Amino acid sequence: MPNIKPSVSYSFTMRLYIENKPGMLAQVLNVIAEHEGDPGAVDVVKVEGNYKVRDITVSARDEDHSSDIVEAIRSLEGIKVHNVSDEVFLLHLGGKIHIQNKVPVDTRNTLSMAYTPGVGRISKAIAEDKEKAHNLTIKKNSVAVVSDGSAVLGLGDIGPEAAMPVMEGKAMLLKEFADIDGFPICLDTKDVDDIVRSVELMAPTFGGINLEDISAPRCFHIEDRLKESLDIPVFHDDQHGTAIVTMAATINALKIVDKKLEDIKVVIVGAGAAGVAITKILEDDGAHNILCCDSSGIINRDRMPELNNTKQWLTKNTNPDDVSGTVVDAAKDADLIIGVSVPGAIPREAIENMADDPIVFAMSNPVPEIRPEEINDIVKIIATGRSDYPNQINNVLAFPGIFRGAIDARATDINEEMKLAAAHAIADNIDDDNLDTDYIVPSVFNKQVAPQVAEAVENAAYESGVARRDKS
Amino acid sequence: MPNIKPSVSYSFTMRLYIENKPGMLAQVLNVIAEHEGDPGAVDVVKVEGNYKVRDITVSARDEDHSSDIVEAIRSLEGIKVHNVSDEVFLLHLGGKIHIQNKVPVDTRNTLSMAYTPGVGRISKAIAEDKEKAHNLTIKKNSVAVVSDGSAVLGLGDIGPEAAMPVMEGKAMLLKEFADIDGFPICLDTKDVDDIVRSVELMAPTFGGINLEDISAPRCFHIEDRLKESLDIPVFHDDQHGTAIVTMAATINALKIVDKKLEDIKVVIVGAGAAGVAITKILEDDGAHNILCCDSSGIINRDRMPELNNTKQWLTKNTNPDDVSGTVVDAAKDADLIIGVSVPGAIPREAIENMADDPIVFAMSNPVPEIRPEEINDIVKIIATGRSDYPNQINNVLAFPGIFRGAIDARATDINEEMKLAAAHAIADNIDDDNLDTDYIVPSVFNKQVAPQVAEAVENAAYESGVARRDKS
Repeated sequence: MPNIKPSVSYSFTMRLYIENKPGMLAQVLNVIAEHEGDPGAVDVVKVEGNYKVRDITVSARDEDHSSDIVEAIRSLEGIKVHNVSDEVFLLHLGGKIHIQNKVPVDTRNTLSMAYTPGVGRISKAIAEDKEKAHNLTIKKNSVAVVSDGSAVLGLGDIGPEAAMPVMEGKAMLLKEFADIDGFPICLDTKDVDDIVRSVELMAPTFGGINLEDISAPRCFHIEDRLKESLDIPVFHDDQHGTAIVTMAATINALKIVDKKLEDIKVVIVGAGAAGVAITKILEDDGAHNILCCDSSGIINRDRMPELNNTKQWLTKNTNPDDVSGTVVDAAKDADLIIGVSVPGAIPREAIENMADDPIVFAMSNPVPEIRPEEINDIVKIIATGRSDYPNQINNVLAFPGIFRGAIDARATDINEEMKLAAAHAIADNIDDDNLDTDYIVPSVFNKQVAPQVAEAVENAAYESGVARRDKS
Repeated sequence: MPNIKPSVSYSFTMRLYIENKPGMLAQVLNVIAEHEGDPGAVDVVKVEGNYKVRDITVSARDEDHSSDIVEAIRSLEGIKVHNVSDEVFLLHLGGKIHIQNKVPVDTRNTLSMAYTPGVGRISKAIAEDKEKAHNLTIKKNSVAVVSDGSAVLGLGDIGPEAAMPVMEGKAMLLKEFADIDGFPICLDTKDVDDIVRSVELMAPTFGGINLEDISAPRCFHIEDRLKESLDIPVFHDDQHGTAIVTMAATINALKIVDKKLEDIKVVIVGAGAAGVAITKILEDDGAHNILCCDSSGIINRDRMPELNNTKQWLTKNTNPDDVSGTVVDAAKDADLIIGVSVPGAIPREAIENMADDPIVFAMSNPVPEIRPEEINDIVKIIATGRSDYPNQINNVLAFPGIFRGAIDARATDINEEMKLAAAHAIADNIDDDNLDTDYIVPSVFNKQVAPQVAEAVENAAYESGVARRDKS
């Protein structure tokens, strides 16, 4: 691991009463610097008697580091720490999203248009033709972000209440990047039937369903059943979002090393939701030499009896020569290794075993399967899930544009054609002149990406026959 | 019925190409006037060749009336009707509410505070103490507006998609009057178990549940079961919202006629959801002489075998002398008659039978149980559900403030004490000096009412022991 740097995700603001004499602020900043804190805004709040009252924001490495800095400041003579507020907690107070009315309902006229009696005409029109709900209600632009809180970030099974801040964050990204009204729905159950049933029941409200942070293998069954029963797009982002951006990174990495997907050997380390989805999309785009490894090594037919359904699917659709062995064995002559597993899952020896111009995507987050520093000397291209290395593979490049395109087409599904179209749109955002070993995926904050993805996905929906809206 | 006047709920905008010569616009306005349309905005869009292009908005009585007006304009020489747009449909395009981010997520810093990795700290804090979800997620301010679309306005069982515009309207009112983030959830089922289960499952997301437009008797069972199983407030507005505002109107009407609730005889015409809720709240505040009538007449013990559970409850809790008869019989010496039934359900003879200073609340909407014009000569006070008569009894006076107060107290319930407190707060909004036979309830647009209700409800929550938030 690189040295952990202070981060705004551990930032805090101290209100300090600082005695009015020369050099006091410098003392404070010195203490922060000595403790390796990263100072941000330094504001004067007011002057009170012989004290200047200041708010100083500092980024730290973690909560202990924050406490150390505050304690050090507290011990300074002539300085009183009045209070300390945690910036991240402040940001979350009362939640991060809210509802707005598109028009005010503060006069008799607007009330009688937006509510009774006027609204009755709209309800009647929809009762006569249900399809009109796509145009005359929030269904036109809304996506439910549904989770049971069973597999949240690195935190695991933390339950529906604790998952809410993450789902709110997801809703924010839908809004920020694709102007979609995402609404978080965290469900108080881990029962597959319960989850499927309640999403089916609330479906009239929404234009699409984004499943999120639901543990495998339940996520597969839930997604499959909802795709089957609902006529609005259903998308499990942990699987397909990751797969699509990985696919985009693969397309561009192969351009640089001048290899073809059809010809390369791929090793996927990690056989969970993301691993399976990546396998599918790579094969849909032409790959046919993929080995998948779980913690017991290469998945092959001998292991069939011990494997769950998903991994059984992998035995039939990967590993054409039915080989066995470790990750290091699997990596022999591989062109691309993709980690969707845990820190340390890919040893340096694996990389040493690879073919020329090795490409490694180590996407475990925040700690990758192998540290870029450990293999920078022998890889051609490395990507991670982190923002502090080049080539960040981040779902936010995919899901906002995908839902925008799917909803705009009023698609009944997000199918493989649409996912591949999204991957190619992301890859194509970087033109060949700019393509480089440390620039194979666009920046998360590149606001062109979502509209480009949306357009590609919408077109793919029409071409693949799942679009319901008449093309104008 | 009074003559129906043109209403903005049937307003449309015509784009007209009007030949550029004197008197043309006057011709158009004359035709609108002759056809009894009500002209609104008259805009010039542009001049094109020999034509002036204008947008003219007109309110009509209904859709046929709109068509008549447009046809008459179409027949004018020198005028071309380019297109006609329905203002109410325009207002509903894409739905009436949307989601907003409280902070933008367009930089690395905000992303890492609102989403990973910063959000992980918030999720962890909630996982350790679930109560923190009330403060750190949208649960602090959100209410689900839940319907199955089985009893919508005057339209009946129109299904979940068609109910959406009404629930969106309800969400708008929560926002406008109480700054609550209401979110509509329309469920694709009419099964009580299904509805209860899905609301229970989504409860971690919300701070309260507003049930809406669910048909009786299912609405009773659903509300009872959810109140029992959930620790957030559950409120069926069609019952309790109506009951609370009726109670408020009763309090003020009785002040005017100088009678006491304990002493008066009340007849309630209509024994559905609202009738039962009104009975309960009147009795909670001291009434003990209430007769309820359904379409077969006074509900009494003889009729027990034929009655459903709810009406059986009424036999035990109303009609102390166990009398029988018609509405007219029931009205003998009554001080207050409340209609929550259908047009025509209260005959003039009933009013003639009443005690001195008769008070009548005829709340069927849009057509009341008896027209005010029919009895203005013999009643002291009349209230309806309509905006074009004095004394409009409208739920919007109650539910926004009730949820505001309940959520602010982090109440586990909306109990009878809180409902009564709301009724008295609404009544008290009008001070004795201003109280008048045609001013017993505040205006729907009186923005003081919701905060007054909220404060009273919050206090009642603390006093009755259902508040969970530490009082600061």
